[in-house]
Amino acid sequence: MSKLPNSGASIFTVMSQMAAKHNAINLSQGFPNFPVDERLTAIVARLAHENVHQYAPMAGYLPLLEKIAKLIQDSYQRELAAATEVLVTTGATQGIFTTITALIQTNDEVVIVDPSYDCYETPILLAGAKPIRVPLDDDYATNWERIEEAFNSKTKMLIINNPHNPTGKILKPTDFEALERLLTKYPKVLLLSDEVYEYITFEENHISAHTRHFLHDRTIVVSSFGKSFHITGWKIGYLVAPEHLMNEIKKVHQFLVFSVNSICQVSIAEYLDVVAIADIKKMYQEKRDYFRSLLQNSRFKLMPCEGTYFQVASYAAISQESDVDFCKRLITDFGVAAIPISTFYANGKDLKLIRFCFAKDNATLEAAAARLCAL
Amino acid sequence: MSKLPNSGASIFTVMSQMAAKHNAINLSQGFPNFPVDERLTAIVARLAHENVHQYAPMAGYLPLLEKIAKLIQDSYQRELAAATEVLVTTGATQGIFTTITALIQTNDEVVIVDPSYDCYETPILLAGAKPIRVPLDDDYATNWERIEEAFNSKTKMLIINNPHNPTGKILKPTDFEALERLLTKYPKVLLLSDEVYEYITFEENHISAHTRHFLHDRTIVVSSFGKSFHITGWKIGYLVAPEHLMNEIKKVHQFLVFSVNSICQVSIAEYLDVVAIADIKKMYQEKRDYFRSLLQNSRFKLMPCEGTYFQVASYAAISQESDVDFCKRLITDFGVAAIPISTFYANGKDLKLIRFCFAKDNATLEAAAARLCAL
Ligand SMILES: CSCCC(=O)C(=O)O
Ligand SMILES: CSCCC(=O)C(=O)O
Repeated sequence: MSKLPNSGASIFTVMSQMAAKHNAINLSQGFPNFPVDERLTAIVARLAHENVHQYAPMAGYLPLLEKIAKLIQDSYQRELAAATEVLVTTGATQGIFTTITALIQTNDEVVIVDPSYDCYETPILLAGAKPIRVPLDDDYATNWERIEEAFNSKTKMLIINNPHNPTGKILKPTDFEALERLLTKYPKVLLLSDEVYEYITFEENHISAHTRHFLHDRTIVVSSFGKSFHITGWKIGYLVAPEHLMNEIKKVHQFLVFSVNSICQVSIAEYLDVVAIADIKKMYQEKRDYFRSLLQNSRFKLMPCEGTYFQVASYAAISQESDVDFCKRLITDFGVAAIPISTFYANGKDLKLIRFCFAKDNATLEAAAARLCAL
Repeated sequence: MSKLPNSGASIFTVMSQMAAKHNAINLSQGFPNFPVDERLTAIVARLAHENVHQYAPMAGYLPLLEKIAKLIQDSYQRELAAATEVLVTTGATQGIFTTITALIQTNDEVVIVDPSYDCYETPILLAGAKPIRVPLDDDYATNWERIEEAFNSKTKMLIINNPHNPTGKILKPTDFEALERLLTKYPKVLLLSDEVYEYITFEENHISAHTRHFLHDRTIVVSSFGKSFHITGWKIGYLVAPEHLMNEIKKVHQFLVFSVNSICQVSIAEYLDVVAIADIKKMYQEKRDYFRSLLQNSRFKLMPCEGTYFQVASYAAISQESDVDFCKRLITDFGVAAIPISTFYANGKDLKLIRFCFAKDNATLEAAAARLCAL
């Protein structure tokens, strides 16, 4: 008897495998195809010969914890009480799994928005708890009235993903006002804020939960270096949480992975001294604008993209196939892989939308766009 | 309300921190202090500049999966049905956590021996199941009659650790005969065989669960490259399981970490082509013999060590303090860190035994032994 009878291979695995098999341009799974900053790879190459190959401390390499605290201070003017409020994890995914496993109990309810990235449900179900999906509005704004309707005495946690994957939506000041009003009414509800795309926002600035002092005592912020530094394969993420929550999270973390890859932790700690975080935004904004301009004369209708490196597009003018079928045909017949948006919905809602990852070099974006304009 | 009210910082974290604070020679936590093979670090340094920094596939980098299958064939003449029977994990710890989380349900019982390494209990408790501890015999042999007495209709899994941490004991052919007789009576019980020290055995050969065909259909073997290649900080381990179990394990793995550090996976895949696994045993046997000879004239009584890189010693002739107190005083007054064996027992049984890690260069072993001989 399976504990997860309804769980299959994640859509990212399925699509990347299919893209590889058909030699398609892979704009499905979110990862960059351009080189990593040479300053960072040079650090790795040098450290390889040094004494960085044994267990990192359980909570993370201390200089990295301190530099993450400084990064948060520089980015959001939040001063952490101590570097012990930071925990380095095997990517944001392990941070999310560990947080939910440590803090969510049988019969608790966890509110998540619909559509959502696919890694929240499994740890909730494994904890014996219930994911409660609340639809976003049609323009992907968070509907705080509906979220409030979903809250009750069993509600233990609200998960927000800001900037939001797959829709590219970012939360506004009014969202945080509504959020704080709601959490004032529910003083025991925790907030898990998944901000892995925090440095990839465009016209508007990202509002991090780090900036909301009112929330700090019950908020876990999860982020990652994978997206920001184009090193999705390194699997170095981190959590920030107040001590009373972090103590529980570490109890699980120490027996779930014990510690995280040491050479990559030391490398990032060094790199944080030289990298200019602000450049990330500019680079991705140019890519977004370029990709959108390339698709201007296609029959795809492009949705707004406020953040993340994903562009959602409607193919309703091209076909009435299901988005999964359309994505398959896009690979086999047109050589481009994308992600069907229905897979982010609990009930597989099919709005004829697909998601492209534009974290690619210009030649790749041009080649993909040429194929997409042929449809 | 904590889900793990009785869980504190792991003894390895506590002792390594205390050793660092007091500048003691750290023979507590198990990690080597000698350099990694230069052929391996050269691979890392070269690959740093290559395209190895994006997500590895969920189950692992394919050439690594294939080389692990070949390693198992070469070491144990077991031919896997497919490389899909292998899963790369963030160290053996994540492999164990994921296996237990995927396969153990509420109210199941999991039998583990006492003393045991400390990472099995937490995932069992988090799954809502019950760890059942069965004492080893006084000479650390597994007592199969007592294990059979612990079995009942709720028993879902037996965990063995072979070679055994902390006792250094390895299972004999008669152990496997008893094990197979027992599992014949309980056809639904799974076996989790933790073999992270598989290549570190001395006078007698390691008998891997890989060699026991009768068991394959319900056995998960967990291992790691951390101990074998002196890269404990890389956190690259792996599981081998038949497809029907592996499918369930992957359902959890893909949302627990999604994938494992890519550059380290690619590096190990290359290294497996050149490394001579048989040399590991010889190197550690020399270290064991040297460390034992250095302590020959001390007042410590050395227990047998058949495998692992740990030496258990009695200090009963030196002091009647508790082993935790003795280990603390050993750090503060004598500048050597060790692990109190009581922490491996469910009830903290204090036999006046401590564990030294001898995976250290000779100068370190000599310096530590000089201090230990002064007691
Ligand atoms: C962990 S694989 C998916 C990567 C990603 O963040 C995405 O494509 O949405
Ligand atoms: C994961 S820290 C402990 C390392 C180890 O295997 C041991 O010291 O027993």
